[in-house]
Amino acid sequence: MTAQAAQGTLYLVPTPLDFGCGSETPIAEVLPQETLRVASRVGHWITENAKSTRAFLKRVDPSHPLVLPIQQLTITELPREVHKKGDHAGEFDAKPMLKAALAGHDMALVSEAGMPAVADPGSSVVRAAHDLGLRVVPLVGPVSLLLALAASGLNGQNFAFVGYLPQDAAARTQRLRELEALALKTGQTQLFIETPYRNPALWDALLRGLQNNTRLARASGLTLASMDVRCHSVQAWRKQPAGVSAQPTVFAIGK
Amino acid sequence: MTAQAAQGTLYLVPTPLDFGCGSETPIAEVLPQETLRVASRVGHWITENAKSTRAFLKRVDPSHPLVLPIQQLTITELPREVHKKGDHAGEFDAKPMLKAALAGHDMALVSEAGMPAVADPGSSVVRAAHDLGLRVVPLVGPVSLLLALAASGLNGQNFAFVGYLPQDAAARTQRLRELEALALKTGQTQLFIETPYRNPALWDALLRGLQNNTRLARASGLTLASMDVRCHSVQAWRKQPAGVSAQPTVFAIGK
Repeated sequence: MTAQAAQGTLYLVPTPLDFGCGSETPIAEVLPQETLRVASRVGHWITENAKSTRAFLKRVDPSHPLVLPIQQLTITELPREVHKKGDHAGEFDAKPMLKAALAGHDMALVSEAGMPAVADPGSSVVRAAHDLGLRVVPLVGPVSLLLALAASGLNGQNFAFVGYLPQDAAARTQRLRELEALALKTGQTQLFIETPYRNPALWDALLRGLQNNTRLARASGLTLASMDVRCHSVQAWRKQPAGVSAQPTVFAIGK
Repeated sequence: MTAQAAQGTLYLVPTPLDFGCGSETPIAEVLPQETLRVASRVGHWITENAKSTRAFLKRVDPSHPLVLPIQQLTITELPREVHKKGDHAGEFDAKPMLKAALAGHDMALVSEAGMPAVADPGSSVVRAAHDLGLRVVPLVGPVSLLLALAASGLNGQNFAFVGYLPQDAAARTQRLRELEALALKTGQTQLFIETPYRNPALWDALLRGLQNNTRLARASGLTLASMDVRCHSVQAWRKQPAGVSAQPTVFAIGK
């Protein structure tokens, strides 16, 4: 047996997009069997938030009994600075978090909702896994950005996700116009998100700052009963009363 | 009842990434229950390839019996020019394909593998659905680009997918250097794909054309037994013998 074969695997485990608010919905509605099976048998977890991870695992247990009682699982939170600054802003070394994998145990990385390391913390852990020569296996589940992109009807052959826009109104409008110019010039769809309570301010800025013919999409409640995905020209949006949801929403502009 | 409520919904149905080659694997391993249930009860399909859609539905049927025998489903292929040029290159009007939805029937859009309208045809159909005021609902399933991004450990807070690179060697190297410069300057991870038989030529170009410290990821066999995702500096890649797979592979560069 080689050293490689004796090491554990790092699994990336996606979670439902309801942030635990849809716990009446069976989790198998949005996560396939392979994802649930892996989640049930991993004993070492790295997470954005231990409480939400315990709540997630409690939802896995009825159909896929956990390998250990939740209290006996090892659940380690990413340091606060990784949440705040993002994995790529700092020089955080996550290798010490992967000791259990080096000792032969499978490990799992999760975030609060959706796919870890995509628009969420975790990439520092994945990077460390590659540096240590660990096997990295991403599992299937909901990814809000890609659900939103597909359902927008905007160009899915060339697209970018740029994260959050500036909070300052003038800087935000300037950034929006840069993104619009890029989308119109290159055809590259530009996706972004906002802290939900600021959605109405962003929506105002979009309707006021963008050109008439630019196409503007917004997707909220993805995978939930409240799901609402729409895409129209800015001109058409301006003609309809359309309050924006204060739940997590993905926005996109394109031509 | 309003006109809106009498219309059918357009569902975006993701399919396994094995292109039908893993038909021994139960489909519920990679598709959640909600996706399978919707797929089993929709009678009107729009697809890249009718043959692969029938093969897909044949795999859904054992656990989620289809509403009609496969031969009686309406399966309509997207026109060839949409495959070749992409939905956004032409001015293809897909509204006539959505007549059944206007008449009150739910419809489904699929591609050969993964999520329709993302790195695959279909966005013209989604756009037409929004223009007609239809409800659009994306369902959960495997999306190779996002599985690759998450598992790369590259920046997932700012990333772009740019499709295929030029085939001509000089033009390809120039484009690679542009993408590398963008990734190093802005921190935006750049993802791209290649026609599988050209993977070795692209891999050569990557190792020869990129800078030592640029991080380079490749992900092949996503969701399959052959899954292999690795990310190292270009310098580190050059030091190890690493033939590239001739199966579908996602490549990414970042810092």
